[in-house]
Amino acid sequence: MIHSIQFKGFASDNNAAVHPRIMKAMEEANYGHCLSYGDDPYTEQAVRVFKEQFGQRCQVFFVFNGTGANVLSLQTMTQPYHAVICADSAHIHLDECGAPVRFTGCTLLFQSTRDGKLTIPDIARHIKGIGEEHHAQPHVVSITQSTELGTVYTVEEIKAIAEFTHSHRMFLHMDGARAVNAAAFLNVSLREMVADTGVDALSFGGSKNGMMFGEAIVILNPALAENFRYIRKQGMQLFSKMRYIAVQFIESFKDDLWLQNAQNANCMAQLLSRKAQDCGVKVTQPTQANTVFAVLPPEVIGDLQKQSYFFIWDEACNEVRWVCSWDTTENDIDCFVELLKQSMIKHGKKP
Amino acid sequence: MIHSIQFKGFASDNNAAVHPRIMKAMEEANYGHCLSYGDDPYTEQAVRVFKEQFGQRCQVFFVFNGTGANVLSLQTMTQPYHAVICADSAHIHLDECGAPVRFTGCTLLFQSTRDGKLTIPDIARHIKGIGEEHHAQPHVVSITQSTELGTVYTVEEIKAIAEFTHSHRMFLHMDGARAVNAAAFLNVSLREMVADTGVDALSFGGSKNGMMFGEAIVILNPALAENFRYIRKQGMQLFSKMRYIAVQFIESFKDDLWLQNAQNANCMAQLLSRKAQDCGVKVTQPTQANTVFAVLPPEVIGDLQKQSYFFIWDEACNEVRWVCSWDTTENDIDCFVELLKQSMIKHGKKP
Amino acid sequence: MIHSIQFKGFASDNNAAVHPRIMKAMEEANYGHCLSYGDDPYTEQAVRVFKEQFGQRCQVFFVFNGTGANVLSLQTMTQPYHAVICADSAHIHLDECGAPVRFTGCTLLFQSTRDGKLTIPDIARHIKGIGEEHHAQPHVVSITQSTELGTVYTVEEIKAIAEFTHSHRMFLHMDGARAVNAAAFLNVSLREMVADTGVDALSFGGSKNGMMFGEAIVILNPALAENFRYIRKQGMQLFSKMRYIAVQFIESFKDDLWLQNAQNANCMAQLLSRKAQDCGVKVTQPTQANTVFAVLPPEVIGDLQKQSYFFIWDEACNEVRWVCSWDTTENDIDCFVELLKQSMIKHGKKP
Amino acid sequence: MIHSIQFKGFASDNNAAVHPRIMKAMEEANYGHCLSYGDDPYTEQAVRVFKEQFGQRCQVFFVFNGTGANVLSLQTMTQPYHAVICADSAHIHLDECGAPVRFTGCTLLFQSTRDGKLTIPDIARHIKGIGEEHHAQPHVVSITQSTELGTVYTVEEIKAIAEFTHSHRMFLHMDGARAVNAAAFLNVSLREMVADTGVDALSFGGSKNGMMFGEAIVILNPALAENFRYIRKQGMQLFSKMRYIAVQFIESFKDDLWLQNAQNANCMAQLLSRKAQDCGVKVTQPTQANTVFAVLPPEVIGDLQKQSYFFIWDEACNEVRWVCSWDTTENDIDCFVELLKQSMIKHGKKP
Repeated sequence: MIHSIQFKGFASDNNAAVHPRIMKAMEEANYGHCLSYGDDPYTEQAVRVFKEQFGQRCQVFFVFNGTGANVLSLQTMTQPYHAVICADSAHIHLDECGAPVRFTGCTLLFQSTRDGKLTIPDIARHIKGIGEEHHAQPHVVSITQSTELGTVYTVEEIKAIAEFTHSHRMFLHMDGARAVNAAAFLNVSLREMVADTGVDALSFGGSKNGMMFGEAIVILNPALAENFRYIRKQGMQLFSKMRYIAVQFIESFKDDLWLQNAQNANCMAQLLSRKAQDCGVKVTQPTQANTVFAVLPPEVIGDLQKQSYFFIWDEACNEVRWVCSWDTTENDIDCFVELLKQSMIKHGKKP
Repeated sequence: MIHSIQFKGFASDNNAAVHPRIMKAMEEANYGHCLSYGDDPYTEQAVRVFKEQFGQRCQVFFVFNGTGANVLSLQTMTQPYHAVICADSAHIHLDECGAPVRFTGCTLLFQSTRDGKLTIPDIARHIKGIGEEHHAQPHVVSITQSTELGTVYTVEEIKAIAEFTHSHRMFLHMDGARAVNAAAFLNVSLREMVADTGVDALSFGGSKNGMMFGEAIVILNPALAENFRYIRKQGMQLFSKMRYIAVQFIESFKDDLWLQNAQNANCMAQLLSRKAQDCGVKVTQPTQANTVFAVLPPEVIGDLQKQSYFFIWDEACNEVRWVCSWDTTENDIDCFVELLKQSMIKHGKKP
Repeated sequence: MIHSIQFKGFASDNNAAVHPRIMKAMEEANYGHCLSYGDDPYTEQAVRVFKEQFGQRCQVFFVFNGTGANVLSLQTMTQPYHAVICADSAHIHLDECGAPVRFTGCTLLFQSTRDGKLTIPDIARHIKGIGEEHHAQPHVVSITQSTELGTVYTVEEIKAIAEFTHSHRMFLHMDGARAVNAAAFLNVSLREMVADTGVDALSFGGSKNGMMFGEAIVILNPALAENFRYIRKQGMQLFSKMRYIAVQFIESFKDDLWLQNAQNANCMAQLLSRKAQDCGVKVTQPTQANTVFAVLPPEVIGDLQKQSYFFIWDEACNEVRWVCSWDTTENDIDCFVELLKQSMIKHGKKP
Repeated sequence: MIHSIQFKGFASDNNAAVHPRIMKAMEEANYGHCLSYGDDPYTEQAVRVFKEQFGQRCQVFFVFNGTGANVLSLQTMTQPYHAVICADSAHIHLDECGAPVRFTGCTLLFQSTRDGKLTIPDIARHIKGIGEEHHAQPHVVSITQSTELGTVYTVEEIKAIAEFTHSHRMFLHMDGARAVNAAAFLNVSLREMVADTGVDALSFGGSKNGMMFGEAIVILNPALAENFRYIRKQGMQLFSKMRYIAVQFIESFKDDLWLQNAQNANCMAQLLSRKAQDCGVKVTQPTQANTVFAVLPPEVIGDLQKQSYFFIWDEACNEVRWVCSWDTTENDIDCFVELLKQSMIKHGKKP
């Protein structure tokens, strides 16, 4: 028996299984031959579905994973002498082993933030040396929605950033590994959040929201799509048996499964946040998407990690990260909070 | 109804579905949470299984696709001022949109061959300028087993190439997208063909042999594995939900499913080759693995392609490529050969 | 008549001419044939001279310019999945159009500083995620000596940084485009400042100190030199007629010409700094090497720039940069300070 | 006394000294301050002079060396998923340690030739897979004028290649490290040979024709120049004290010094070729520019190399390369041919 955890933990939404409906759709697609590399009817249908969600103008390219989606999105927007402005908590800076820098050749200009969200003044301070050959030229702003800190840009904030970015002849990239959680929190459509705000290209996550694998690069600015298929192939991200990504996205968008999954993850994060606070724990970021940040006594961290793994976000201040998933249940939270409460009491931290 | 082909075609083994046993194994692994990025029990078990197959010394890293496997294998063997010697029919030269060159920085020295197989004199003529800074330094020989032309290196040939390669202080890479078909043809174990011959790193294919996705980089030379996990992550090939690749390999190796699949593909290719020749068609390469190359009258190519897509390998001489898969049946071949025979007769080509 | 400036300005030490002794040495080397690419007797002699200065253990490679020296030094120390820690004022981050990032593939982790000098805590805060594949691995610390802000690390500071760096299994790179000015300020030999402190590789500047062109990469850690000549050639920095760089360095080191040049530039900077302060100008960094940073009223900046170009370092606070050269004279300073004084008075800024 | 050769050898035109007029011009430019990085009056004048030679439409960028010129020319024409078609004797393939491949990311498709010259059928056979994402897309043809084998494309041949290249929406690059020798041989102006034939960008050599260092990238197709200054800076090829390259080119073009130098080198090659043939030596390529290829008995090669170094071009057939320079004299040739004759006689090879 290979699984042994009593309740589902909060280490990452990557730890969750595949949603049964998606698994079933994959099985149903699993017969006979299909043309490979995207020339199959599933891919055709999946593209149609994306156009319904994001607008007819968008172009969609499926890739394997989030790092691939980010690197290739940035590559199609840049030349190697460009720079990309992002938050210092951004996945493209911190969590992809330098892949965006290595493959685009671009400099990352990363900005510290309080809550993972770039403001216009944050961006503005990095726009300098324009036209001077000695400086890598700022050319892209990359925002993460929802952010690595579980916060969410409003539609108005994205619009304002897009306008500012475009007014400097730069492109706006959105790392949307958890775009679904943001849209669910904002209660807006993907089109309203992405296409109507002025995002030029989106890395759209699937695997964190109930899929097995597969992300989509949604290009809203048609000029950026022109040679993208070469970038994808050379970028090692062209899947041969494409039907198996396509069918997952088709199912995800059927009857708003994506939204239900994202809503569940968000609600569970709200619940966990509230219950943890009830135990006297300080939550350090507004709980908006599916992630909770909290400061715990180190001995409580130690107790909890014996039973359920999760990440320590900032060792210096004993801040931890808990992520809820499409499959997190109230029972998972109750079990976990019970452990938390017992440990707090044991160590004399009264709720 | 999304599939409509009457019989399974011969365009590519990438067009085939996933073997039902593998699909079932994926479903069975699909519950509860697992640690991501390879820290899960499935990956642990899959690594054990690989060590049984390739020897305890080997180290295994799973990646998404064949291009990723080739690029990362070559990267761990090279610095950018190195050169890689390969056949001019090699996938790394012809079919990966220049990914190996772009990501390693290395020069490819490609050699024309009659049958896709490099000989020692082929390799030797590219080993020059050693120690001269003006020349990219040959550092890797990359062979494809089975080759792009459906031929197979013997164990002795591989050993001789490995010895020669090592005697020049170079590494031997094997692109084994269809290594299984070669081993099946040679009737040897993977260990005998790969580990015992002196291959330093192998790109081991899964998706062409009944898996959904996933390839393995099998590193036989321990020095090459030391920092590989950074190369994989930066190379955009680290899968978050790794259990879903691992479980496919576990199932593939159970009861020699991989071998049965490869044997079926090879046998069907033999059958197709023989029956095509019976129709008066000239087969241009020895049919050893799962691919058949044949010269057809252009009007016959036209007739056949109306009913079943396949690739024209060399337009100049009307040479076509037919690939058999784990799921190709005698009936598929009979249907296709019947069409072929009718077309040959229609165009006055008597068998 | 192509030159028209009345006195030599303070825009950059790159604006100065070649020292007459160096020019004369180039002429004297200009007859007959010499083997190219460094196999000539001038290069042999220049290497000997470097070994006298930096110790017999060092290995020296000449390149064209400072960006080349920095990029290639960093490349020989890194793999693309590494990170380099530097000050955010570092030339490698700010002034080389992203060349170090683009060619090494490495992430730059840049740290804001007060005076251009990294401290050990500055460095320490970037050493995290070691051994985790998701993070680019810190592998090099790069310090600039003298810094972009005209300040100088003491020998003890360099030693401490080297020890700290090595204790984390990282390398120490010194961008020494103005290493001569630092050594002159510290009144120590190049060996004491570079080889004896534990620097692994140095970019040693020539063109800012009276040479026409040419920089040297001085490698103190022999392992880093092994394949360097391939890195240099592939890095587009191998000069065919090498004697013309070599002879400049030979002459520079004869009778300590390099030191006299550096001392002159430093002394003139001291003089300018003092005289500017006498006019009521605030100098913002300790004047240690050959550069002066000062805050001026914007209208005074305007007046001065009409007659002599120099850079505004920080528009936000009207901070300017003045650089003295090997050929700056007291008369140049007197002329310039006279203009400064008049403008201050004109705008009601009483000394 | 550092030089000791009795007569000037034939190893390379890189071995020659700087022409005295050019050296003198450098000295004359050597006083006072000039703005750096090309904002100086010498550079302005040099650009004017290039426009006179190549037409007003051209844009000129100075770089350090030939590898830099080639790499940056190719970079401005390509994306990493492109391929460049060239002869297999091309410097960009053989002699730059893989720099063009490493920095552009492009695949080189190299073609064997008899005489170093690509024909249209040579090019045509590499134009395939257009529009297919699996193949690096041919995008540039690079020809070398004069070739590595001392041969010269006629103006008509270049025009035909340019037309063919452009008809496939590709660019034409000319590696003109020895463009001057070709123009001298053809007895046409640089404009006729380069601008009027349809070349898109030229690497124009200076250092092989009497300059100390410095090459020019001459861009005839304005779209390719737009962002070139960033490519040059990031490509480590922006010279700080630009006046010292500019003044060399100014002097080279004054009173056709470039042409006299090239004519001398060509004439001396003709003389050497004729006299060598008079000694019974077989010359293997038409002697058109400044290089002679000849087959010698191995014992004669041994004798000659004791007294004067030169390169063995093809060990397999005892083919050697002799290069004449701007400063080669009849006396140099007479001395060398005398040695050749004596050795031939000594070894029983009667003229």
